Amino acid sequence: MTLQNFFEYIDQHKGDCIKRLAEIVAIPSVSAEVGKREDVIRMGVWIKTELERLGAETKRVDPGMQTIDGQEIPYPPVILGSLGNDPNKKTVLVYGHYDVQPALQADGWSTDPFTLTEKDGRLYGRGSTDDKGPVLGWFLMIDAHQKLGLELPVNIKLCFEGMEESGSEGLDEVIEQEAGGWFKDVDCVCISDNYWLGRNKPCLTYGLRGVSYFRIVVTGPGADLHSGVFGGAVHEPMTDLVHLMSKLVTPQGRILIPGLMDEVAALTEEEKATYETLDFSVEDLQSSIGAKNNIHQDVPSILMARWRYPSLSLHGIEGAFYSPGQKTVIPAKVSGKFSIRTVPHMTVDKVTELVCEYVKKEFSKLGSKNQLLVECMHAGRPWMSSPNHWNYVAGAQAVKKVFGVEPDLTREGCSIPVTLTFQEVLNKNVLLLPVGACDDGAHSINEKLNVTNYIEGIKLLGAYCHELATVEKTD
Amino acid sequence: MTLQNFFEYIDQHKGDCIKRLAEIVAIPSVSAEVGKREDVIRMGVWIKTELERLGAETKRVDPGMQTIDGQEIPYPPVILGSLGNDPNKKTVLVYGHYDVQPALQADGWSTDPFTLTEKDGRLYGRGSTDDKGPVLGWFLMIDAHQKLGLELPVNIKLCFEGMEESGSEGLDEVIEQEAGGWFKDVDCVCISDNYWLGRNKPCLTYGLRGVSYFRIVVTGPGADLHSGVFGGAVHEPMTDLVHLMSKLVTPQGRILIPGLMDEVAALTEEEKATYETLDFSVEDLQSSIGAKNNIHQDVPSILMARWRYPSLSLHGIEGAFYSPGQKTVIPAKVSGKFSIRTVPHMTVDKVTELVCEYVKKEFSKLGSKNQLLVECMHAGRPWMSSPNHWNYVAGAQAVKKVFGVEPDLTREGCSIPVTLTFQEVLNKNVLLLPVGACDDGAHSINEKLNVTNYIEGIKLLGAYCHELATVEKTD
Repeated sequence: MTLQNFFEYIDQHKGDCIKRLAEIVAIPSVSAEVGKREDVIRMGVWIKTELERLGAETKRVDPGMQTIDGQEIPYPPVILGSLGNDPNKKTVLVYGHYDVQPALQADGWSTDPFTLTEKDGRLYGRGSTDDKGPVLGWFLMIDAHQKLGLELPVNIKLCFEGMEESGSEGLDEVIEQEAGGWFKDVDCVCISDNYWLGRNKPCLTYGLRGVSYFRIVVTGPGADLHSGVFGGAVHEPMTDLVHLMSKLVTPQGRILIPGLMDEVAALTEEEKATYETLDFSVEDLQSSIGAKNNIHQDVPSILMARWRYPSLSLHGIEGAFYSPGQKTVIPAKVSGKFSIRTVPHMTVDKVTELVCEYVKKEFSKLGSKNQLLVECMHAGRPWMSSPNHWNYVAGAQAVKKVFGVEPDLTREGCSIPVTLTFQEVLNKNVLLLPVGACDDGAHSINEKLNVTNYIEGIKLLGAYCHELATVEKTD
Repeated sequence: MTLQNFFEYIDQHKGDCIKRLAEIVAIPSVSAEVGKREDVIRMGVWIKTELERLGAETKRVDPGMQTIDGQEIPYPPVILGSLGNDPNKKTVLVYGHYDVQPALQADGWSTDPFTLTEKDGRLYGRGSTDDKGPVLGWFLMIDAHQKLGLELPVNIKLCFEGMEESGSEGLDEVIEQEAGGWFKDVDCVCISDNYWLGRNKPCLTYGLRGVSYFRIVVTGPGADLHSGVFGGAVHEPMTDLVHLMSKLVTPQGRILIPGLMDEVAALTEEEKATYETLDFSVEDLQSSIGAKNNIHQDVPSILMARWRYPSLSLHGIEGAFYSPGQKTVIPAKVSGKFSIRTVPHMTVDKVTELVCEYVKKEFSKLGSKNQLLVECMHAGRPWMSSPNHWNYVAGAQAVKKVFGVEPDLTREGCSIPVTLTFQEVLNKNVLLLPVGACDDGAHSINEKLNVTNYIEGIKLLGAYCHELATVEKTD
């Protein structure tokens, strides 16, 4: 009995695998809608029942009540599972989420979003790729092993939540509570909730940027003023704010806050080389952004700008006129919002300190009599793992077994906060092992998962467990 | 029979004058509300009936239908009146409006806004000062002359509209149509629809600034982007826009558009002297703006900045994030709105040309691949009259007769478009002769008209007619 038998089994049961996915795509587990909360909970119960059918021990944790639109409704449960506790095997913790983004056919879907529809090798449906397909992949992988009488080579702990699309409310507390309990023996973590860099080549993802979100508030007159009556006589908060915002970043994306770039990890020759061979092109970027206004002209520069260097984006202004048409008001109080995507070794405190100091200094240069407030509204740290860790080695060998290629080593520019929580609370390595392709449209209309990504993805999760079992554990 | 008899008559009938004002404040002629349109029309009919009672010829002009909130309702009528056609007398055209701003007691009014309430010498009620008090002043002045058997020393044409608070829709057409008809013999125009500079001293107003409203549109990616995923890789429209907006004006209000200030009329010693003696203080400004963030520290500089120099205000940005909280989006298309208050001898075309040329040049310096559009969305010219004109001389002598002081000569920073229309279509001098005080709160809660301003105002309108009759007509 070999891994090959498992691969063949999955190929032979392709139709069943798709049918099972259709079954859960049909449950509209939209966590953002009050009216769908019952469906989210139903989906959580489905997960628990299915885990038990596979022989897993389970635990349902209910994080309490949520007030949404003035209504009190229960949070969906976090479902924990445990399969095997052989002290001679490694233990991998698998995370996924069973809630989905909202979807209405009226938004422009070509098919009913909650009816999985196969067309041209693609499985269209809300949650197909984010994250029901990958979650079900783990179940089908385990099921295939059991049907084949093939022993699972690792112990598996599972953690599935139903609030990922709505801020993962309550999850951190569960992870902290269970660190010494349900998650006690975990050796490494695997999350399949991101995407390949391109459409054709699998990847392992080992880094995510953090984010520090700021606001600059400038307060002037006691109330909004008529610009005809008072224009020219008062220091206008909008003028001050726009001057300050123009001092933060250049049109070429260069951050102007002194000292900030000193915090960025130096680029090594080894890391630089990893950007040369990735399955990505300038055209891929232009197709994603729907324009040709890219700053950089070569792939390594583009990807480094998105993954390993900080960026600063100006999001907007609260308190000023924002509607179409014309309004001739001098706003009394305006609040400019911007965020900095952070990377190793930037720290939240240092970034806040540098930004606030600089903005205050620039404001003092303006010679305005208005009042300034600058503050960090929210901050999440960057996450980075080592692609040389045995967890990644197992992932890379699994990719090679299933796809016959070395995976791309990627990072992403955005944040997946649970990744950092797992790494820090459990102090274990986290591998991001995506199943879907870059064009799956996770949060868009016509979300899809390619049949090949799905089927080969199930094989990948199985192969990863087998590689985990044999790789040398060096920590 | 002298003017003194008229003054005494008004003093003796103070109670009646207030009672009459209460009668029309009780008609909630709010032009902005569909549900109150019948009341606005009722108020127009009241005006017409009252004019006829005074023996005036009248004409009702209905400007047609308005679509508001998807409903078709008639525009309120423009009511024209004519009293006297003695070719040996001068003919003055009086303009006013009988509609009012919306008002709800729930907004914070201390009393019912549509019940005129006298307290501490103040008449509280919506429309008391804007503009029912001054409009009724003309009627009561005429009525007093008739009761006293005192001949009106001028022919009076009257023009009252019911859409002033909602853009004066249809009025310009009526003025143009009647230029050679109802308004044929007009020698000068008088409008009582603005306010004293302070609380204590009457004024004549001889200038208003114009306004040119612009937008700068920067377009980048095909759709809004996730700042985590794409931050650092694309030229962000918000960055470009904020850089451009910061190049327009300094925090001290200095306009940075080259050539723009060259268009401004030079300050003469004579004009400069007029700012020295005005009834205004730095504290008056600070009290109006509810703060101490005034740019200038002396009265002449403050008033010149508001009246005779241009100003540039940044109003806001359309298309960017404007809500409380945080959103990490790179907006695909943003539109920055700003306006320039214009003064003699700036022309609409020259201002547009200088602004567009400059913004385009500054954009080209940014080295961005985004797309730029800059355009003037709307423009109204400044208005200026000569305070030496015989119409103003009559006004000033009238103030001296009633108040015993020389009036302040003021301008205002905002626009009253009908002023310019009358001046240009009829080619006659327009005098702004305010009745109310600076703190009347025309568009606010607790709008009021002081009893003294009202009573002395009625006298002022009468005295003005008498002075008009005797002043030498030099044009």
